[in-house]
Amino acid sequence: MSGSTFGRIFRITTWGESHGPGIGVVVDGCPAGLPLSEAYIQAFLDRRKPGQSKYTTKRNEADSVEILSGVFEGKTTGTPISLLVRNQDQRSRDYGNIASLFRPGHADYPFTEKYGIRDYRGGGRSSGRETIGRVAAGAIASLLLKELGITVRAYTKAIGPYSISSENYKFSEIEENSLYMPSNETAQRAGEYISQLMSEKDSCGGVIECVADGLPAGLGEPVFDKLDALLAQAVMSIGAVKGVELGDGFAASASTGSRNNDPFFSENGTISKKTNHAGGSLGGLSDGSELILRAAVKPTSSIARTQQTVNTDGENTEITVLGRHDPVIVPRAVVVVESMTAVTLADLLLQNMTANIENIRTVYRRK
Amino acid sequence: MSGSTFGRIFRITTWGESHGPGIGVVVDGCPAGLPLSEAYIQAFLDRRKPGQSKYTTKRNEADSVEILSGVFEGKTTGTPISLLVRNQDQRSRDYGNIASLFRPGHADYPFTEKYGIRDYRGGGRSSGRETIGRVAAGAIASLLLKELGITVRAYTKAIGPYSISSENYKFSEIEENSLYMPSNETAQRAGEYISQLMSEKDSCGGVIECVADGLPAGLGEPVFDKLDALLAQAVMSIGAVKGVELGDGFAASASTGSRNNDPFFSENGTISKKTNHAGGSLGGLSDGSELILRAAVKPTSSIARTQQTVNTDGENTEITVLGRHDPVIVPRAVVVVESMTAVTLADLLLQNMTANIENIRTVYRRK
Amino acid sequence: MSGSTFGRIFRITTWGESHGPGIGVVVDGCPAGLPLSEAYIQAFLDRRKPGQSKYTTKRNEADSVEILSGVFEGKTTGTPISLLVRNQDQRSRDYGNIASLFRPGHADYPFTEKYGIRDYRGGGRSSGRETIGRVAAGAIASLLLKELGITVRAYTKAIGPYSISSENYKFSEIEENSLYMPSNETAQRAGEYISQLMSEKDSCGGVIECVADGLPAGLGEPVFDKLDALLAQAVMSIGAVKGVELGDGFAASASTGSRNNDPFFSENGTISKKTNHAGGSLGGLSDGSELILRAAVKPTSSIARTQQTVNTDGENTEITVLGRHDPVIVPRAVVVVESMTAVTLADLLLQNMTANIENIRTVYRRK
Amino acid sequence: MSGSTFGRIFRITTWGESHGPGIGVVVDGCPAGLPLSEAYIQAFLDRRKPGQSKYTTKRNEADSVEILSGVFEGKTTGTPISLLVRNQDQRSRDYGNIASLFRPGHADYPFTEKYGIRDYRGGGRSSGRETIGRVAAGAIASLLLKELGITVRAYTKAIGPYSISSENYKFSEIEENSLYMPSNETAQRAGEYISQLMSEKDSCGGVIECVADGLPAGLGEPVFDKLDALLAQAVMSIGAVKGVELGDGFAASASTGSRNNDPFFSENGTISKKTNHAGGSLGGLSDGSELILRAAVKPTSSIARTQQTVNTDGENTEITVLGRHDPVIVPRAVVVVESMTAVTLADLLLQNMTANIENIRTVYRRK
Repeated sequence: MSGSTFGRIFRITTWGESHGPGIGVVVDGCPAGLPLSEAYIQAFLDRRKPGQSKYTTKRNEADSVEILSGVFEGKTTGTPISLLVRNQDQRSRDYGNIASLFRPGHADYPFTEKYGIRDYRGGGRSSGRETIGRVAAGAIASLLLKELGITVRAYTKAIGPYSISSENYKFSEIEENSLYMPSNETAQRAGEYISQLMSEKDSCGGVIECVADGLPAGLGEPVFDKLDALLAQAVMSIGAVKGVELGDGFAASASTGSRNNDPFFSENGTISKKTNHAGGSLGGLSDGSELILRAAVKPTSSIARTQQTVNTDGENTEITVLGRHDPVIVPRAVVVVESMTAVTLADLLLQNMTANIENIRTVYRRK
Repeated sequence: MSGSTFGRIFRITTWGESHGPGIGVVVDGCPAGLPLSEAYIQAFLDRRKPGQSKYTTKRNEADSVEILSGVFEGKTTGTPISLLVRNQDQRSRDYGNIASLFRPGHADYPFTEKYGIRDYRGGGRSSGRETIGRVAAGAIASLLLKELGITVRAYTKAIGPYSISSENYKFSEIEENSLYMPSNETAQRAGEYISQLMSEKDSCGGVIECVADGLPAGLGEPVFDKLDALLAQAVMSIGAVKGVELGDGFAASASTGSRNNDPFFSENGTISKKTNHAGGSLGGLSDGSELILRAAVKPTSSIARTQQTVNTDGENTEITVLGRHDPVIVPRAVVVVESMTAVTLADLLLQNMTANIENIRTVYRRK
Repeated sequence: MSGSTFGRIFRITTWGESHGPGIGVVVDGCPAGLPLSEAYIQAFLDRRKPGQSKYTTKRNEADSVEILSGVFEGKTTGTPISLLVRNQDQRSRDYGNIASLFRPGHADYPFTEKYGIRDYRGGGRSSGRETIGRVAAGAIASLLLKELGITVRAYTKAIGPYSISSENYKFSEIEENSLYMPSNETAQRAGEYISQLMSEKDSCGGVIECVADGLPAGLGEPVFDKLDALLAQAVMSIGAVKGVELGDGFAASASTGSRNNDPFFSENGTISKKTNHAGGSLGGLSDGSELILRAAVKPTSSIARTQQTVNTDGENTEITVLGRHDPVIVPRAVVVVESMTAVTLADLLLQNMTANIENIRTVYRRK
Repeated sequence: MSGSTFGRIFRITTWGESHGPGIGVVVDGCPAGLPLSEAYIQAFLDRRKPGQSKYTTKRNEADSVEILSGVFEGKTTGTPISLLVRNQDQRSRDYGNIASLFRPGHADYPFTEKYGIRDYRGGGRSSGRETIGRVAAGAIASLLLKELGITVRAYTKAIGPYSISSENYKFSEIEENSLYMPSNETAQRAGEYISQLMSEKDSCGGVIECVADGLPAGLGEPVFDKLDALLAQAVMSIGAVKGVELGDGFAASASTGSRNNDPFFSENGTISKKTNHAGGSLGGLSDGSELILRAAVKPTSSIARTQQTVNTDGENTEITVLGRHDPVIVPRAVVVVESMTAVTLADLLLQNMTANIENIRTVYRRK
């Protein structure tokens, strides 16, 4: 099956390697009637484009998207939307020296074990460029969410040890620093930390937080397709993410029931919660409050420092990973986390349509 | 779709409510030829059975499993295996008083919003009893893993703030304390903490760790069905789990590339890693080392303490959750985490069979 | 995967063998709020029950259904509905003599090749009793269709060479003869034909026709999940069905475009077709007219006549299939074809809900 | 979901409209290590290319395929294979006159009802050009089948009333006539029939037969994913196909058990069948003999003759379908039926790998 499809109704299928002809995605199951243009999608892709700050790879890619199908006279038609981004800067000579080496922290070794063959050019399918398809699909998902008044926003909560606690968030500052942190001050210190690591041929990771507003209660399917569970799969499927949590997450495990339960209250006919330790999900269904999730991103595996490893003949050796690599991928991964969250929510919104007979009567009696 | 099916090839479909006639699971796609008995499955179920220690609910359930199909003359036949556990102790009178209230921390409110109807007896489908089907399926998955020399073991790493660091693990002690902790000493202190909370009509959570040994390299499917991603879905889909991480997980986000990368080395023709910060997964594929994951479990939502809430008419009110509830569900959830891990690994083992043409030739030329 | 699940949103998973403890189905994705009782399902099951006429097996089975989950206070809750029918008359001694023989026309040989093991008692999983789960699920699907004014009805068009042309249908007579034919006269002659075959230890097949009324236009998903395609899978998946056609079907292949195209016309604001050679489907989507499909059922494979075959040691030998077998399964398969059609339509009705943004707005703005 | 994906393990997702930028397919789950080139795929596409004989549309399309991913150094890598064919001859002016009319026999009306929007240029998604993706995927599937000694071949059995009975097949003549019939003589008469219809602005259909050789016994999954059932879906999902049958198909319904059962016999240690009324499938699993299926293709719906219809405002009117249309699509659909059969068989070959524990041990112990 090879795992390139995500979603039940709003389904995305990505394809493409780092140094092949291109990268793309097919979005099947997007409802007809949404206004969609290449410019709209391009704006999302530009947020993950390389070369935007001193903390990102110098690889020079326009990452221009082309809509190949599924849109007619500016609107989605309900048929699959195929999106293509051509790879341009395919300097695969940079990767010749690693063709016969297993890079630490990378998928080279298990890929070879699994497939018996490996596209060694820049990580091939396991390259970060694979996320282009996710972001393009995320743009379309966001369009659907927007129609229903739902917004999704991700930002950098931490770079290495430099973390911002939620009471100090300054959301207006997110776009003001190249790390997408809700605090210019912390971003400044994190930036110095990254510069220091770069000079030491090292790298770091961080934490991305994502918030969704405007969700109706009831999204998510009980048991295996819980809102939490599908979001966990969606976000953990992003390369370099090693942990996911909702609401208080791991901290909740050290709390008590009396502190962790969010009391309900009613005001002007609207039911809300006084607190939101749950992060917007109860029993795997959205509870109408803000959805909050966090993803732990490991340090970039590609570092210029010499590392010990094994070659494809099974001999011990050393490796120095050359090429153009981000010292930290967190800032560019922000829009990827946001996109995967949007795709998951869009799918669950559609799945939820058939939960009860009243919804069904509403649709078919309208006709 | 309603989310009751998990897995692509080794697929489990669970059903059942807390106070209905029974709970069960259909396991489809289990290979033919495995020796399977009710006694084997029962041993797994007994590990999650209530009433085993002073820290678990007094609900009295034998939870006896019956194999309804898929086994002939003591062996699996390749057809779906249907398993049934009858509910016996259905004291639904305990729940009458909450029929019209939304319990804080529970799924009552979003279920009602989603379906327009709610089985209010003991949580219905969102009850912890739903996990019976998972554990029964996990027993079968373990059987398949065992055939290939793979073992999966889970235990309690932390109860509330009482956590054991990995260098202090005493694995031989896990079965010696009713909390399934690899340290009798910490278990002792955690037990006192739980007793204290019980006297205060409060509850706590904890952290469960799960380790799988003997995995070949290459399990997991790139992109969306990464080993990490499917395990995250599997484990996060367990009620009360609010966070999942692999290897160093969230701690990795504060590390550096030079520290977090695991160097490869070769010895006697075998490729291994010197460290295992990755927790056994690189690029979403197993790397041949130990798989390590952790799940954060929130404190039990059902507490006897009076809480503020709203009733089904939307009026502010108070609730006192009576009935028999675990002050901490962690010990009973250990086997559930282990089961979901086993089911995920079994499925990925089968998916991996078709990764390359050499595997396929091997099977079809044998005939 | 082993193929025991059908449907995308309204999903059914069947399990069970002819001579195991029981047969059942799990229906996941049924909307909440439908009135459902065991009596309602039982009425469907009674239509396929053995022992109802001289043309059906004497096997004595009550085939009583028990609802194990998914229904609360007489209504579906949106969670999986698990249904169980215990096998009662398990005279497996009848099958001892065929344990080591491959019955012609049966799945014995390929099952053994595939699984390396075979439940030889009465066909095991490939027994006609497997259809119990389909019919129980079909009852639930019909309930959903009924809510939207859609009816599905199947009947016997032909028994062996005795076929009724559509202009001679007398629908009122279907329930008056034990072959469920819309012509008592043809049923009479077909009955004599069957009696003759029984005396010769032989069997016959026939054609079942199924008609659905009240479908809105637009059901079905373009390309692979066309209405025609999913109905073809659904109906061809019934054991003994060897052909499926919609509308004029095979006859259309010998027609011309000018005769086969159905002209549209409009009357009182309603768009209809003057003819219905298409059988209610255009481009794989329902077109608002009557859906008509036919299934070709092969003669019963189990015949008492001595046949040539091979045993499990690969030696040439003879076989005489004893036991209780229907000389023709068509009458009992009528409700199975109807059920599979209902299940397919129910699923496509739910899938169609998300086809356009207007439907989605309608549901979410209602709240 | 919108139905653009087919297959469980070997999965194909097609996209594209008749007059959009292009048409394509993503093949996910193809094993690594198969030799694959654009030239190989192109040879399949050339068989369905328009403009090859006087019986096919004059639309001028090179239909050149580009491999965008999944192939490295001439071999498949196990990652998704994305294939793109640009549309070139997009004379959409031909379709302007039908933008506001519902063409009889076409999907225009139900598409509009379903999506509220319609790409009216040449049928859009429901155009025959959609099958380009199927054929490209079929080429890859054939490659996998070839590795295991399986061949799939389709041809024209009938054009309108001109049908060839199997005892008169001359397989060597298939490539000698532009209708791909195994009889030049019948092809000659069928050709005259088509010419006659063309002069009358009319069209015809026909029957395509497909045969697969070399299949091991046991392919197919019991119950819903039977070999017959998935083939039926696969073939019926091709636009214009209105009926499917295996082996004797509809004729079997008028036969008797004693004639229709295929006796087994053993020779030199190999088990075979004396006859093949079943068409190579017993109980939904391949039985080791030749697989035979037939598809009924309706007459081309686009005819130049004036027809009665309704416009998008619901008014009665007339339509004359201009543009370039095949008077019969059967010859070009031959490779489409062959491709869908190959895709289905490839998928079932992979699914079958995990049927028993012996296969699994064989793969994992090899390592």
